[in-house]
Amino acid sequence: MPGPAARSHGSRSVVTSLGAVVRPRDLMAETAEAKAAWRARIVTLFPEAFPGVLGLSLTGKALEAGLWGLETIDLRLFGIGKHRNVDDTPAGGGAGMVLRADVVAAALDDAARGTPADRTLWPVIYMSPRGKPFTQEDARRLAAAEGVTILCGRFEGVDERVLEAYGVEEISIGDFVLTGGELAAQVVLDATVRLREGVLGNADSATEESHSNGLLEHPQYTRPAEWQGRAIPEILTSGNHKKIAAWRREMSAALTRARRPDLWQKFTAKE
Amino acid sequence: MPGPAARSHGSRSVVTSLGAVVRPRDLMAETAEAKAAWRARIVTLFPEAFPGVLGLSLTGKALEAGLWGLETIDLRLFGIGKHRNVDDTPAGGGAGMVLRADVVAAALDDAARGTPADRTLWPVIYMSPRGKPFTQEDARRLAAAEGVTILCGRFEGVDERVLEAYGVEEISIGDFVLTGGELAAQVVLDATVRLREGVLGNADSATEESHSNGLLEHPQYTRPAEWQGRAIPEILTSGNHKKIAAWRREMSAALTRARRPDLWQKFTAKE
Repeated sequence: MPGPAARSHGSRSVVTSLGAVVRPRDLMAETAEAKAAWRARIVTLFPEAFPGVLGLSLTGKALEAGLWGLETIDLRLFGIGKHRNVDDTPAGGGAGMVLRADVVAAALDDAARGTPADRTLWPVIYMSPRGKPFTQEDARRLAAAEGVTILCGRFEGVDERVLEAYGVEEISIGDFVLTGGELAAQVVLDATVRLREGVLGNADSATEESHSNGLLEHPQYTRPAEWQGRAIPEILTSGNHKKIAAWRREMSAALTRARRPDLWQKFTAKE
Repeated sequence: MPGPAARSHGSRSVVTSLGAVVRPRDLMAETAEAKAAWRARIVTLFPEAFPGVLGLSLTGKALEAGLWGLETIDLRLFGIGKHRNVDDTPAGGGAGMVLRADVVAAALDDAARGTPADRTLWPVIYMSPRGKPFTQEDARRLAAAEGVTILCGRFEGVDERVLEAYGVEEISIGDFVLTGGELAAQVVLDATVRLREGVLGNADSATEESHSNGLLEHPQYTRPAEWQGRAIPEILTSGNHKKIAAWRREMSAALTRARRPDLWQKFTAKE
């Protein structure tokens, strides 16, 4: 008879390597997840969405190498009754459906096993267009934690009470509406995991890019020297490194002023 | 002997349904993509990243139903020489690699076949942290076009000359750095496709959410009426629809003021 323990086991799956999902739980795989340097637990109605793009390229190699671990928790398995309902109509009326507090709480309890209760060491996040905008600083903060739990929403939202009771942080990746939180969660994981040691090939790459210094990156050029009548700016082929650095700073500043007056204002306030 | 035509065929793949990638080109599938109501062409070094999450749930069903079409163009196949190099070191020095203008141009030429040259009807976008922030308005604009071409970057960036010469729009999904543009492209596609007619089950859902009216969404509640000693706010169970609507507006305004002073400022300026 499948008791609560069996149900609980079946609710999770550990991604051990590129797309290899182990279900029901494989003890070896669980050990791999538990030993990973940094861990992510994803509560979702679409566990098959993971690792998705994160299983490719540098994040995929790092996942395979155990530099980070990924475990999905299938929200559906915490649903109520024969149909495992996870949502219900909004109190007070309105379109769409709201994820139930009790169902979400049970999934978050499962996700919490073996993780620190301190939200600084292990943030619990709900991806939501109502959230605080996700920034590179958040990525750094998450990368410095031991891991993260991310709740992916669907429908109209989540019952407010579980967000309050569980100290859930609402984070948004931007001022647009997505079908669900899965893509947003992958964005947060990608931005975070790449900051962990050993994930990027070249340590320089993590520091020099746009938003790392508060300005947009200067234009880049490479071979051929001339293309369709367009030449690489002369200064870049001058060999004068001081002048090149000054030109790049100037271009970065001009681009930021033009495209992102908000960032430029923050930058000048800081200087 | 595989001539340029064969190479060109092999460079594209059409996603016909959930994860089913046709390669080399299947004429039936190509017809399906060409007939789709709205079309996306993705230039990427990781065509296997698509459709990714977009192949699931509502966007996946819509893809299968031909409400939108997705074609990937493998940038690697436009690379130079035996090793099909797509990038080179940055002119003027520095870390990382820059995608070559000639290679990117060839891929964009391929992506342009059969599409309108007018960038309003068919925007050509490069996902980049240097870009203008993507908003719900951009999603509406893209959904109103016939389709879109999205270039996904990797490495340090793209040679500036091809962005200029091809009228490429740089768009960013936020102030953070990702491993590559593939996830960002999926975010843009998700936000856009869900606005196309027939993709969402309930037409209301597209209009009522956060950011559709410029304010964050009010808190939501559903059954049970009491959970862990927390009750649903009384007003929501009063049955007084006028009062409920007023309460929700008030909560939306308060939440926006607290979490997003920038949005609140825009909203009050508009009122």
